[in-house]
Amino acid sequence: MHSEKITGNIIVGQSGGPTAAINSSLAGVYQGGRELGAGKVLGMLHGIQGLLEGKLVDLSEKITCDLDLELLKRTPAAYLGSCRYKLPDYKKDPKDYDRLFEILKEQNIAAFFYIGGNDSMDTIRKLSEYGELKGSPIRFIGIPKTIDNDLEITDHTPGYGSAAKFIASATKEIIRDSLVYNQKNLTIIEIMGRHAGWLTAAAALAKGNDCEGADRIYLPEKNFDKEVFLKDIAALQEQKQSLVIAVSEGIHLADGRFVCELSDKDFYVDEFGHTMLTGAGAYLSALAKKELGCKTRAVELNTLQRCASHIASHTDIEEAFEVGRRGVMAAAKGVTGEMAVIKRVSDSPYLCTYETHNIKQIANMEKKVPMNWINEGDDGMKEEFIRYARPLIMGEVMPVMVNGLPKHLDYICD
Amino acid sequence: MHSEKITGNIIVGQSGGPTAAINSSLAGVYQGGRELGAGKVLGMLHGIQGLLEGKLVDLSEKITCDLDLELLKRTPAAYLGSCRYKLPDYKKDPKDYDRLFEILKEQNIAAFFYIGGNDSMDTIRKLSEYGELKGSPIRFIGIPKTIDNDLEITDHTPGYGSAAKFIASATKEIIRDSLVYNQKNLTIIEIMGRHAGWLTAAAALAKGNDCEGADRIYLPEKNFDKEVFLKDIAALQEQKQSLVIAVSEGIHLADGRFVCELSDKDFYVDEFGHTMLTGAGAYLSALAKKELGCKTRAVELNTLQRCASHIASHTDIEEAFEVGRRGVMAAAKGVTGEMAVIKRVSDSPYLCTYETHNIKQIANMEKKVPMNWINEGDDGMKEEFIRYARPLIMGEVMPVMVNGLPKHLDYICD
Repeated sequence: MHSEKITGNIIVGQSGGPTAAINSSLAGVYQGGRELGAGKVLGMLHGIQGLLEGKLVDLSEKITCDLDLELLKRTPAAYLGSCRYKLPDYKKDPKDYDRLFEILKEQNIAAFFYIGGNDSMDTIRKLSEYGELKGSPIRFIGIPKTIDNDLEITDHTPGYGSAAKFIASATKEIIRDSLVYNQKNLTIIEIMGRHAGWLTAAAALAKGNDCEGADRIYLPEKNFDKEVFLKDIAALQEQKQSLVIAVSEGIHLADGRFVCELSDKDFYVDEFGHTMLTGAGAYLSALAKKELGCKTRAVELNTLQRCASHIASHTDIEEAFEVGRRGVMAAAKGVTGEMAVIKRVSDSPYLCTYETHNIKQIANMEKKVPMNWINEGDDGMKEEFIRYARPLIMGEVMPVMVNGLPKHLDYICD
Repeated sequence: MHSEKITGNIIVGQSGGPTAAINSSLAGVYQGGRELGAGKVLGMLHGIQGLLEGKLVDLSEKITCDLDLELLKRTPAAYLGSCRYKLPDYKKDPKDYDRLFEILKEQNIAAFFYIGGNDSMDTIRKLSEYGELKGSPIRFIGIPKTIDNDLEITDHTPGYGSAAKFIASATKEIIRDSLVYNQKNLTIIEIMGRHAGWLTAAAALAKGNDCEGADRIYLPEKNFDKEVFLKDIAALQEQKQSLVIAVSEGIHLADGRFVCELSDKDFYVDEFGHTMLTGAGAYLSALAKKELGCKTRAVELNTLQRCASHIASHTDIEEAFEVGRRGVMAAAKGVTGEMAVIKRVSDSPYLCTYETHNIKQIANMEKKVPMNWINEGDDGMKEEFIRYARPLIMGEVMPVMVNGLPKHLDYICD
């Protein structure tokens, strides 16, 4: 594999929502470019949207030493900035494509890397198809990234492990916090994930010798029943006074209505006439307070789920780096229209290898939590999930602490 | 000092809201008891409320080795459980007092330690006064604890440094998260603190070479003006597109109305007829969205402010330990009716000593952020605050990581 080299420059962009690991993939692409003899490693600012406006940066000017590369791996969000720009169908509207390929030619680009989720993989699919159509030698490779862990084919997605580690740690800490008062109390932790429950399922990892874990876990893969929920909680409260429940923001009733919409539409309209984005957690907390009369609270884990790099998973950060680096190696071998994927060899000891896979079987798809990993009550995770997820949160990435806080690579976007 | 010994047993309780450091003070009391020859170190479960019901635990059965003590220092919330129980005036209603002193006598208690905030210090004040009245030899010592940092006399309060470190780290990460999209956007971070702005002020610590910091910081010590806020944000948006603002949950208008009440009373009533606890952040986010037309979001840092022991401050955890230990040393010297306090000798190098101080000048008081540490626009912190707060977040307490998560001491409360 080491005989292939990159001839010319390479370019890399980031797209979609931030994660704690996406910059490690950027570091991996940079490192891959260096190893394989690429000329410049260019970054597009704010993804293809910025590229269309010619907004480029030479990464070697930003990453000047090994420490910079390590800081980049420890910097959350998207160092190059992001976008949510959907390329049109090139058959109907090739304008963007002509412009992009013109810029890529001007910049002597041999390979193009896009780090992102489902939508970003659609961009890679379209660009590689268009490139093939035009006989372009440019290689287009997708690098997976999303805290949602909902990409097909790859065993898991870089970004998920760190988000899961934060969620599980926070859940442990919140459970402790809920134990202090000597009265019945119910905490609802609301976790990201509109359609796929991977993040919410991570609350199950909190359970251990020192923690009873979340008492119930509700994923969007299953229908949620308010009456069953209330009866269940009431019964559970007879056994223990402090309950902690994890719910996905996307839980919904059997008729398809989101639980968070119940509150929006029925009773949370703000003074400006907008429906408020009151979440599933706040709704269930209010409902339980009324129906069960106990002290309740809702805790939304919020933005930190995707940017808490201070408690990143070592496994995740290193894998994110490696999918970036492997993407460049694949491009050097002539691969195009594929995404770097992680393939699990074994759970224990945890072992993964890397491959690339046809982007058409990945773009725009959505991988959900397998139904047979959810327990029979539809309110918790089976051991199969724990075996899958535990390795992904293992290991620590020591932040570089300066003045008492994690240091990040200086930013270039504003 | 080392000649004084404790003759008999000692007892310790925790009260008020959880912090990441309160268990380190418990560990300090335990260690102090061991060092000074106390018989048993008893813990009261759920504070004096539990003590009144005779709920006691022998801590030596729970802390069986050095590692347990270290785990206790790294365990958030309140290991012994907490309560919010206000003792009545002993002149009017001595029943509780008679019962408590009876139990303390039965248990051969030489000294009583209560770890908590303003209200808990009121408990120490009352018990020490009653003890004096009755000629009791029992020593009553307060150990300071509160993330709010609002206790008088002591330079700062154990628990604050770790909360501030979490807040500053989260603020840095959220600022990064806000930079990714190429459009005007406003993030409002809502931070705890109803009357004192210490926690919100900690957002100012995020600023450094790698982070521009929060653009504005609003404390409850000053009046908040909605019109000034909107004009200011609109002007600021001409200079930079991504803005992050930190607000205290307790910010209020000049007429005294809390900003969060504006939303509660005017338009957030839930289907059950309760006013919703929509916070100041959610309100300002909705307001700015309407008036300025930009993308806005509110992030509530929430419960993790007081329980994120995974990113605790070493300075804080060690000081929390030491005030506990020093409390026992003071009791051994015969002190009663006092609280262990931290006295700052210098900012740089940071150096503190420990004393005890008459509880009457501490109980029920509330220390606010000095007005001359807030900038002239009433929307940010001056360097004086940074010099004060920076040392308190310095240093890391490595969590003991097991199965990818911070390990805590097994719990005894539920």
